[in-house]
Amino acid sequence: MGRYRFIGFLTDFGLAAESVGICKGVIKRINPEVEIIDISHGVPPFDVAAGALSLAGAVPYLPVSVVLAVVDPGVGSDRQALAVEVARGDVLVGPDNGLLLPAAAELGGIVRVHRLENEEYRLHPVSATFHARDVFAPAAAYLSLGIDLARLGPAVSAPDLVPAPWQDRWWEPPEEVRETRVMAKIIGFDQYGSARLDVRLPVRAPRPHPGGGGRVVTVRVEDGERAFRLPWVRTYSDAPVGEACLLVDSDGRLLIAVNQGSAREKLRLNRGTTLLLAVAPLSRG
Amino acid sequence: MGRYRFIGFLTDFGLAAESVGICKGVIKRINPEVEIIDISHGVPPFDVAAGALSLAGAVPYLPVSVVLAVVDPGVGSDRQALAVEVARGDVLVGPDNGLLLPAAAELGGIVRVHRLENEEYRLHPVSATFHARDVFAPAAAYLSLGIDLARLGPAVSAPDLVPAPWQDRWWEPPEEVRETRVMAKIIGFDQYGSARLDVRLPVRAPRPHPGGGGRVVTVRVEDGERAFRLPWVRTYSDAPVGEACLLVDSDGRLLIAVNQGSAREKLRLNRGTTLLLAVAPLSRG
Amino acid sequence: MGRYRFIGFLTDFGLAAESVGICKGVIKRINPEVEIIDISHGVPPFDVAAGALSLAGAVPYLPVSVVLAVVDPGVGSDRQALAVEVARGDVLVGPDNGLLLPAAAELGGIVRVHRLENEEYRLHPVSATFHARDVFAPAAAYLSLGIDLARLGPAVSAPDLVPAPWQDRWWEPPEEVRETRVMAKIIGFDQYGSARLDVRLPVRAPRPHPGGGGRVVTVRVEDGERAFRLPWVRTYSDAPVGEACLLVDSDGRLLIAVNQGSAREKLRLNRGTTLLLAVAPLSRG
Repeated sequence: MGRYRFIGFLTDFGLAAESVGICKGVIKRINPEVEIIDISHGVPPFDVAAGALSLAGAVPYLPVSVVLAVVDPGVGSDRQALAVEVARGDVLVGPDNGLLLPAAAELGGIVRVHRLENEEYRLHPVSATFHARDVFAPAAAYLSLGIDLARLGPAVSAPDLVPAPWQDRWWEPPEEVRETRVMAKIIGFDQYGSARLDVRLPVRAPRPHPGGGGRVVTVRVEDGERAFRLPWVRTYSDAPVGEACLLVDSDGRLLIAVNQGSAREKLRLNRGTTLLLAVAPLSRG
Repeated sequence: MGRYRFIGFLTDFGLAAESVGICKGVIKRINPEVEIIDISHGVPPFDVAAGALSLAGAVPYLPVSVVLAVVDPGVGSDRQALAVEVARGDVLVGPDNGLLLPAAAELGGIVRVHRLENEEYRLHPVSATFHARDVFAPAAAYLSLGIDLARLGPAVSAPDLVPAPWQDRWWEPPEEVRETRVMAKIIGFDQYGSARLDVRLPVRAPRPHPGGGGRVVTVRVEDGERAFRLPWVRTYSDAPVGEACLLVDSDGRLLIAVNQGSAREKLRLNRGTTLLLAVAPLSRG
Repeated sequence: MGRYRFIGFLTDFGLAAESVGICKGVIKRINPEVEIIDISHGVPPFDVAAGALSLAGAVPYLPVSVVLAVVDPGVGSDRQALAVEVARGDVLVGPDNGLLLPAAAELGGIVRVHRLENEEYRLHPVSATFHARDVFAPAAAYLSLGIDLARLGPAVSAPDLVPAPWQDRWWEPPEEVRETRVMAKIIGFDQYGSARLDVRLPVRAPRPHPGGGGRVVTVRVEDGERAFRLPWVRTYSDAPVGEACLLVDSDGRLLIAVNQGSAREKLRLNRGTTLLLAVAPLSRG
C-alpha cells in the first residue's frame, strides 16, 4: 500500500500523564520519519462514543494517513484489535468497540479489516494494561512503513465488528413555508458544552443554512416534561450572549448551543437523550 | 516573500476536542512540509486580551514564522480576517479584534496588512462557525508556501484595525534612594495565577532587577479599600512559600506572584483592576 | 557525541500558557532540524517526584535522544543545572533536584555529568524565573547539534547530585503456595488516580503476572487504622467496574487501581504513605 507520511493520533489518555508521549516514542523508534498529527487526547476517559464522534469529525480534514485511535475500556480483555482500510486510502488502527466505524464511513467506507495478531508487529512482552503502547502504536508505525494490513493478522468481515455507537441520519432542509418535525438524539458535546445531534444536513447543498431567517424551533425533551423554544441561527453570535440556539455546525450536524456559554449546563442536557424538534414556518413578520 | 518553514499556532480551542487537530490536518493537506509549533491552545475561551498576551510573549522566541492565532468570539459576524506582515519578516494570521497587535509590536511593528478574502485560499463551503478551519488555517498554509499576502485580499491600513486590548507602558527602574510610584493595570494571569501588569522594564538594561535588595512595595487596589505590602524580589523562591511578592518577569513585565501559589486567589485580583504601586526606598537596615 | 534527531520534553508548565511553546521556539531557532517529542507537560506543578516518575516511565520507549526535563521549584536559586549522559547514549538536561535520576537509572545509569554554566550556550540576559527558556532549552538544542557535554560546564561527580526522590525496589513474584508480605510506598498517581508503588517485578520474567489466579491481597495502611482487601488481577477489567484491585502495570510496577475509577479517591490514598501488602496463597477453592 506504500508508505504513509502521517499518523493521526487520538486517545482518551489526556495530557496529564506520559502515556501519549510513550506511544509517540514507540512509533518513532519504528519509523523515525513519520509525522504524528495529534487529533485529540482529551476524549472523556473510556467514552467510546465521544471518541468516535471526534475521530469522525476530524479525519476528513487530515491528509490520507494511518490513524491510531485508542479509547479502550476493554483493554486486556478478549476484545479484538483492528486495522481497517477505508476507501480514501487511510488505515484506521484501534480496538474493535465501534470507535473506528463512524470515521470509516466518513472516509468512504470499509475496504477490508484485519486483526492485529502477528507477534512480529508488537512490543514484547505485551502488557495486559497498555495495548496502545504494545499493540496499537507498533501496528500503526509498521503500517506507516508500508507493511500491508494482511501481514498483521487474519481478515475479519465488516459485519462481524462491534457496531458504531450511533448512526447519523441525513435530513434534507425543510421547506420554509410549513412546520417540519425531526427526532434527534444527543450523541455528545463539544468542548464548549454544545450538544451534537445525530441529524445532519448535506453541507455541500446550495442552501445549507435554512436558519438565519428567523425560524423558531420548539425542542421537546423525550421525557415529555420539558420543552424550550430556540431561534435557528446561522452562527453563535446571531444569538444574544448567554442565549441558547439551534444551528448547523461546520460538518452539517445539528447543534444546540449557547452563545459564549454551555448548552449542556444551561439546558441540563444529557447524552443519549432523544429530542423532538418542531421547526416553525419562516416568520414573515 | 519566500517559503516559511514554521507555522506558530495559538487558539482558545483547548485540547479536549479535535478542533486543533482538524486545523493541523487542513494545513498539512496544503503544505505537508511545514512544521507547526504549538504556542498554546489554552487561552481562556473568547478571551482576546489573554490570547494577545500569550502571543506577544511567545513570538519573539519563535523562528521567523507564519503565526496562526485564533481567539475569535465574533466568528461568522462581519469582523475581518487578516494577514499582518511585521518588520521581522513574520506574517500573523487571525481575526481583526486586536489579538495580533501586541505580537506585531514585539516583532518590530506592522509593515502591511491584507484581508483574507480571496476565495481561492479558503476551504469550501466556508462554514459560519469554524473559520479557523475554513479561512485562517488555509491562509496560513498558503502563506507558508510563499504566496504573497497581497494575493489574499485587499490591503487595509493599520489605523483602521480594531485596536490592541492594552498598551504596554515602559518604565525605567526607579532610583533606589527615594520612593517612586507607578500606576499599573492587571492585563492577565499566567498559568500559576500570577498577575501580569501593563508596566515593563527594559530587560536588556544592565541593571534589570532593582528588587532583591529588600525594597518593599505597597500596592493599593483602585477601589481604595484594599492595600497590601509586598517584597520586591528577584525570583519566586526569594519569597517564603505561599507568600506574595513583586518581581520582574522574564519579559521585563511587572508580576505579582505567590511563591508556589496563586496571587490571583490569595490576593483576590481581577483582570482590568488598576493598582497603585509605591516602591519604598532601598532599606539599609 | 554526534547529532541527535530527537529532543524528548517534559515539564510541569501545563498547556494553558505559552511557556512550552516558547521553549520549543528557542530550540527551533538553534536547531531547526531537531524533532521534539512531548513526553508530558502535565506534571503537577513543582512536583519533582511526580515528574521523575513520568520521565522514568517514558524514556525507555523513546529513541536515543536529548531529554529536556524541567520541574524546578528552585528556579533562580543556587540549585545547579545539569546535563547527564547515560549508558544508552541519551543526554538528560534539567535541574539538579533528583528529577533526572530515576530516568538515568532506567537508561543504564550515569556515564558523566556536567553543569550548564558556559554563557555561550544560554540565552541572554538569563532571567531569574524562566531557566527552561534561558538555560535548559538552549543547552538541549546545542547538545542535539552534537556539542559535547564537557563544553557546557565543569564535570560533577554523580554522588554529589541531589538524590532521587525515591528508589525502586525489585521484588521477585512470590510463590503461589504461601502468604508473602511486602512493604510498599505510594510514590505517585497516574492520570486515572491509580496509586503507583515503589515495588517492581521483573516484567521480562517468564511469569510476570502472578495474579489473575484469584489471589487476594490485604493492604494495611501505615497508620494501622485502615486496611482493605483487594483481588490481584491481570488487568483493570478483571475487577468489576468501580472496584479496587492490585495489578502489575506495564512497567512491572505494583499499582492499586479501580476499574474505570480513581483509587486515590475511593481508597483516600496519599503519596508518601507506606502500605503493608499481605498476599494470600493462591485460592484452590
